[in-house]
Amino acid sequence: MKIKAYGSTSPDSDLAELSIIRRDMGNDDLLIEILYCGICHSDIHMAHDEWGMSAYPIVPGHEIIGKVISAGKNVSRFKVDSIVGVGCMVGSCHQCPACDKNMEQFCPNMVMTFGSPDPFIAGQMTYGGYSTHIVVPERFVLRVGAHLDLTRVAPLLCAGITTYSPMKQWEIGKNSVIGIIGLGGLGHMGVKFGKAMGAHVTVITSTESKKSDALALGADEAVILSDDQQMKKYVNHFDFLLDTTPVLHDINPYLQLLKFNKTLALVGAAPVSLHSMNLIFGKKHVSGSLIGGVAETQEMLDYCAEHNILADTELITVNDINSAYERVINSDIKYRFVIDMASLKH
Amino acid sequence: MKIKAYGSTSPDSDLAELSIIRRDMGNDDLLIEILYCGICHSDIHMAHDEWGMSAYPIVPGHEIIGKVISAGKNVSRFKVDSIVGVGCMVGSCHQCPACDKNMEQFCPNMVMTFGSPDPFIAGQMTYGGYSTHIVVPERFVLRVGAHLDLTRVAPLLCAGITTYSPMKQWEIGKNSVIGIIGLGGLGHMGVKFGKAMGAHVTVITSTESKKSDALALGADEAVILSDDQQMKKYVNHFDFLLDTTPVLHDINPYLQLLKFNKTLALVGAAPVSLHSMNLIFGKKHVSGSLIGGVAETQEMLDYCAEHNILADTELITVNDINSAYERVINSDIKYRFVIDMASLKH
Repeated sequence: MKIKAYGSTSPDSDLAELSIIRRDMGNDDLLIEILYCGICHSDIHMAHDEWGMSAYPIVPGHEIIGKVISAGKNVSRFKVDSIVGVGCMVGSCHQCPACDKNMEQFCPNMVMTFGSPDPFIAGQMTYGGYSTHIVVPERFVLRVGAHLDLTRVAPLLCAGITTYSPMKQWEIGKNSVIGIIGLGGLGHMGVKFGKAMGAHVTVITSTESKKSDALALGADEAVILSDDQQMKKYVNHFDFLLDTTPVLHDINPYLQLLKFNKTLALVGAAPVSLHSMNLIFGKKHVSGSLIGGVAETQEMLDYCAEHNILADTELITVNDINSAYERVINSDIKYRFVIDMASLKH
Repeated sequence: MKIKAYGSTSPDSDLAELSIIRRDMGNDDLLIEILYCGICHSDIHMAHDEWGMSAYPIVPGHEIIGKVISAGKNVSRFKVDSIVGVGCMVGSCHQCPACDKNMEQFCPNMVMTFGSPDPFIAGQMTYGGYSTHIVVPERFVLRVGAHLDLTRVAPLLCAGITTYSPMKQWEIGKNSVIGIIGLGGLGHMGVKFGKAMGAHVTVITSTESKKSDALALGADEAVILSDDQQMKKYVNHFDFLLDTTPVLHDINPYLQLLKFNKTLALVGAAPVSLHSMNLIFGKKHVSGSLIGGVAETQEMLDYCAEHNILADTELITVNDINSAYERVINSDIKYRFVIDMASLKH
C-alpha cells in the first residue's frame, strides 16, 4: 500500500512529506495505524548521515505507538484496535545465539525499524514511524496499556529501554548509589528508573540550569561537571554511572567518581577520551549497552505501567519536525518531542 | 645504613650512582642484598617524570631478586640466605576492604617500592631495587625457588604479575581464544601465560619482524595491525584481549575483534582512542588491571616454577642502564633488561 510519510532525501535536506510503499501483510504481521512517534537523536544522526550509513530516502522514527488495523491469521496476541508499540527493531534471524538469549538487538541480521535493507522488499530500506502506517511481524510488536497517556509512552520504546536495560544488567537496586551523566531524553529516563529502582541518584550535567531540572525530576543530587570543588566530593562515590552523552567527551573525570571495580556504561553514540590509568587504578570498567531485546522491552513497558513511569514530552505536528530537530541539537527540549501522526493525514 | 644506589636527580638527567639511606630493620623486616633487578618501562616513566608524580632523587626498580642478610625477630617464613623476591609494593594499611581481599595494590595507603612517601623516614621517598640492599616487611617479600635462573625470575615481579592477574580474573583456560596486543616485556609474558593456561594465543603487533618473534615464543598465530585483510579474519574472534601497549593508541580496531560481551583489558599506562559504538554494538567491555596482590604474586611465582615459565632477558651492569633505557624506548630488547646488582658494589 502507498502511504504518506515524512523524511529526508539527502543529508542536507530538510524533512518533508514523502510517499512510500508498505509491503502487503503476511500471516504473522500486524498492520498498525501510527498514532504517535517520538523523535530520538538517532533520527537526526541518520537523517543527516552523521554515521556514514544512511541510504536515502530516510523515514526516521523508532518510538512508535499505534493501533492495530489488521492482524495476520497467525497473530495471537493482538487484535484489531489493540494499542501497541514498536521500538528500534522489526526483524531478526531467530536462530543465532543472540536471538536464543532474547537479545535480538545483537543478532547479525537484526532489522532496524528504519535504515536497514528491507528483507521483504528487495532494494528498499526499512522506513520508520514518521508515517501513517507500518507493517510489523507480531514478534516485534509490544503490548501497551491503552489507559496510559500514549504520547508519553512513545519515548519508552527507545529512550526508555536504552536506560532501563543497563540498569537491570548492572543490578541497580535499593542500595545503589548511581550517577546519570547528561540530562536529555535518555538521562531523564535514567533518573526516573533509578528512583523507581530505589537507588540514590545524582545527575552530572554540564549545564547549570539543568541542576534544578534534575532535582525537579526526582534526582537526589545534581552536580556541574566544571565545578571541581563539588566534583571532588564524588570521587570513589558511585556504584554505577550511566553516560548518556551523545557527543565527543572526556570520560576520565567520570571514571574517578566510580568506586573500586565498578562500571561506567556508555549508551550515547560518541567518541570519548580515555586514559588507561583511570581504569587500571581501581580496576574499573567501561561498557556499552544497546537498547534491549524484545522481551526486555516488554518487561520495561510493564514496569513503567506498574510504577507510573512516563517520559516528559512536548507534542508536535509533522510541520514542526525540522524546527524540533534544531531544538534537540540545541538541547532545548524537556525531554522528548513526540509527533502526533494524525497531523500527517490531513 | 648508607648504601650505594643508581638513580636520577632530575627529569632530564641520566641515571648515575647515588648514596642513599636504608632505614634500620624492625622486628617484622628483612634486610635483603639485591642480586638482580629488572628494568620496567615504569622505571623510565618515573625517572623522566612522565606521569607528573616524581620527586627526586629517584631510585627505580620493582622487579627485585635478592638474598636475605638479616631477619627481624618476628619473621617466620624466611631466614638468612633465603632467596626472595620483592615486587611493586612494600607496604599497605592491612585494614581497608582492598587489603582484606588481598588486593593491596588498591589500598589507598599502598606504598610503592619506589616513588612513594616512605612511611618510615619522614620527608624521604621510597627507593627501589637499583641499589645494593633494601629493607622490606616480611609481608611484602615473596618466596622464590633458589634453583631457578634468578636473572629470568626478576621480571616476573612486575611484567609477570601484570599479565598473569588479568588472565586469571577473566578465567583464561583451555577453551579460550585470546589476543595479546603488543610484544614487549608484558606481551611476551602474556604469550607464555596464555599458552601455559591452555589458550589459543594470537599476538597482534604493529611491527612486521615481531610476527616471527611471537611464533618463536609459542604464540599460535600473529597478525600485523596494519594488515586490514588479515585483521578482518579476526573480527568477533577473541574471548579476551590483553592490551599491553604503553603509548597513545587507538583501541577501536581491537574492540571489533572481540566476541559478544567480552573484554579488552588495558595494562599499559596510556591514553587511548575509543568510540562508544564499538562497545555498544556487541555489549563489549574495556577494563583496567593493576599488577596483583601479594598472595596472587606468590601464586604466580609458584605457577611459573611449576610450569617452567621464565622471562626472556638480557643481563647488564649498572653502567649499561642509560643505554638500556634508550633501547627500551626503541623497543630494542627481547624482552627485559635485568641489572646484575653485583656490578654496583665494585
